[in-house]
This record gives sequence, C-alpha cells and structure tokens, in this order.
Amino acid sequence: MDILLFSNSMLPGASYLAYAQPVINSALRRRRNVVFIPFAGVTTSWDAYSAKVTDALAALDLNIVGLHQQKDPQAAIAQADVVMVGGGNTFALLKACRERGLLEPMRQAVARGALYIGWSAGANLACPTIRTTNDMPIVDPGGLDALNLVPLQINPHFTNALPQGHQGETREQRIRELLAVDPLLEVIGLPEGNWIAVSDGQARLGGANPTLLFRAAQPAVTLANGHRFY
Amino acid sequence: MDILLFSNSMLPGASYLAYAQPVINSALRRRRNVVFIPFAGVTTSWDAYSAKVTDALAALDLNIVGLHQQKDPQAAIAQADVVMVGGGNTFALLKACRERGLLEPMRQAVARGALYIGWSAGANLACPTIRTTNDMPIVDPGGLDALNLVPLQINPHFTNALPQGHQGETREQRIRELLAVDPLLEVIGLPEGNWIAVSDGQARLGGANPTLLFRAAQPAVTLANGHRFY
Repeated sequence: MDILLFSNSMLPGASYLAYAQPVINSALRRRRNVVFIPFAGVTTSWDAYSAKVTDALAALDLNIVGLHQQKDPQAAIAQADVVMVGGGNTFALLKACRERGLLEPMRQAVARGALYIGWSAGANLACPTIRTTNDMPIVDPGGLDALNLVPLQINPHFTNALPQGHQGETREQRIRELLAVDPLLEVIGLPEGNWIAVSDGQARLGGANPTLLFRAAQPAVTLANGHRFY
Repeated sequence: MDILLFSNSMLPGASYLAYAQPVINSALRRRRNVVFIPFAGVTTSWDAYSAKVTDALAALDLNIVGLHQQKDPQAAIAQADVVMVGGGNTFALLKACRERGLLEPMRQAVARGALYIGWSAGANLACPTIRTTNDMPIVDPGGLDALNLVPLQINPHFTNALPQGHQGETREQRIRELLAVDPLLEVIGLPEGNWIAVSDGQARLGGANPTLLFRAAQPAVTLANGHRFY
C-alpha cells in the first residue's frame, strides 16, 4: 500500500500544500488520475476546494476530479490512481464518506495499489478511528471508526503549546485522556510540516519537526526523521 | 430553573474553583445536599476528583457526595438539592451519563428546583448538544444530544488565540464550521473566568472577560457583563 499522511496543508509563509508537493511528487510514480474528496470542507464550497487543490498541485500535471462532481462516486474511486482527501472537519468528512458508502471502496482502492494522500482530517480518516482529531464535533459521524489503512493513530497539527494565560487542556493532556480509556493505543503527535509515508510495506516518518509518540503511563518519546513505524 | 454554567474551573494564579465560589454561594440559597458527577474525569480517579471538589468548596459548608459512590445513582440525583458536574472530557461525561440512564433524572431534578452547576464539560452537558466542546472524541457518546437545560450552545474555554506559528483552525473557524452545517444556531464563546447564570426564568452573563456571540454569516458580537440571553 502507498499512503501519504500529512499533518497539515500549509506552513507559515508558504503556499498551500507547498511542503507536501515534493513528497507527493516522489510517491506518485506514473499515477495521474486523482479523485479528490472535499467533504471535510464545510465553510468553503466543494467546487472551490477542489479548484484550490488543483491549482496548488498544477506543477505535478495531475488529472484531478472532485468526487462530489462524479455521478457514481464509488466507481470513480474504483478507477482512480490516487485517492486524495483534504483537511477541514473530520466529523463532517467521516459522516459524508460513511453515508455515501465510500469507506470500503476507498479501502479497496488502496489495497489494489491506488495512492492515498490525506492531510489533517484526511490523515485522521486513514487511521483506525478519528479519536485523535482536534476538530469540533459539528455532526455525528455515526461511529468513530474510520478507514484503518494504517495501524497508527495520528494526532495532526500536533503542538503542546497553549495560548498564553489559557487554562484549557494541552494537547498532551487530551491524548493522555484517550490513553486512559484505551491504554494499549499508541498515539503519534505529528507536528505541522511532518508526514508519514507508507510504501513497500513500511511506514516512515518524514519532516524535520519533533514528532512525539505517546503511550499510556510512559513519558512521550521523540521520534527522529526517518523513524520506521513498521 | 436555577443553573450555573462556568467556562472553566481555575484561572491563572488562582486556586481550583476560586472564581466560581462566590457565584455558587449566591445561588445556593438553602441548598446543601450536593451530588457531584465526576464522569468527565478520565486521567484522575473519580474518588480523587470528588475529594478535590469537596476540598475546594469546603468554605460553603456543603454535603457533597460523589455519584459514582451511590448504590442508586438515579435516586441520588432525585434527592439532591444540587447537581454538580465537573469538567474533563465531554464525550466521556455524556457517554457515562447516557449509559447509566442519568440524563432524564438530571433534567427532572433541575425541573423540580435542584441547582445545576457545571463547568467546562459540565457546562457543555447542559446545552442542547455537545457540538461546541473542544475535547477529543476519546469515546463515542452514543449521540451528541445532551441535557438541553438551556436553549444556549456554549463553547467553554473560548479563546481565538493560537500558539505562535500554529496553522490549525482558530476557535472561531471551528465554530463557523458548526454554523455552516446548522445556520440557525447561536454559539456563545464563553471565555475562561465567565459564566452564565439562570434564575427566575432569566439567563444572564457573568464575568468581566469579553464573551462573543456567533451567528451564521454575521460578525461575532461582544456581549457585556450582565447581558440577558432570555
């Protein structure tokens, strides 16, 4: 399986998907037919979201179609070389995919060799569940289980900083709550600018920022760039 | 109905529940028998959480019992003068209350005159749904609908600040996503240190920090201390 899971879409001072583009380019090989899933976008139209992604990746010479524009979304996924899932609200994304019966077709597409690319909510969707999302539960997704493409549970946009003077839970505290109810889980705090790449049966960490691995009752471990998860 | 909904439990440099204590004291009147619901606590034991709250409110001369220690939790709620719900993880709180059949007894208790006090997750639980929680969905609560004690949808710990250099969604962006899927909703961004007090059929804002009201397609409105919601 070939999978790219990015923490986020955009770094400060850089353009949309700029840091992801060379990583995507390396992973594409000859794949060019991309189905883009815009359902995490809720404050933008899906047309506009698809156009924004198409523009951002113009240099890669891809044929990108928005899944929302396809008459038969399941068939579109079945025929795609690349399944690309954008960020936004993870609950809205999972609900839309579940309601349209897309989760199993997406799994099958990746199993037969399509490249899965997701960022932020799209990275969460590839995990066993969306329990490590940072998003607001604006809709009920009908269960928290997700694509389970990787045996990794990613927290995207990971940071442990809080705005000054703020008393809400830190991200680590939130992750520790998850580990309290599911102590066998491992959670990867993937900071902005980093990604996990799966290829040839191996999952590797990319990006220069400190990535943290959280396990119950143990201090967080910092993973090095290139760390091999499996 | 008498209801106190606090954004949070503790301000920088102050002790636990210190800012809430005089507000609670005013609202208590002769009520002294408190049932404390600790189910939002997931990284602390429910015994320790109940003890912490009991200690923090010692000056109020209350009789506080932890609901988790009661043989018949529904009866304990039915007999309480005060139903107090602590913060922590809102998903865990709602799940525990739903599974134990406590939501309707809690509504009935408040309807017959018990004082409801909640902070953070406990304030979210009093709303129509928990869709404005900031918490991580560590468990599936079996639906996002909650106590619906007030026709207000509160976002506790409201701040629009992000850690420097962070590209995740601001709180306002997250709330705007909710308003995009439910445009008739009004969301109250309740900053730390503020509260909403319901008494004599009126709901009023308390606290000196700027509270924001969000409506779809309109700029946020800053509400004054003492603002009357209904």
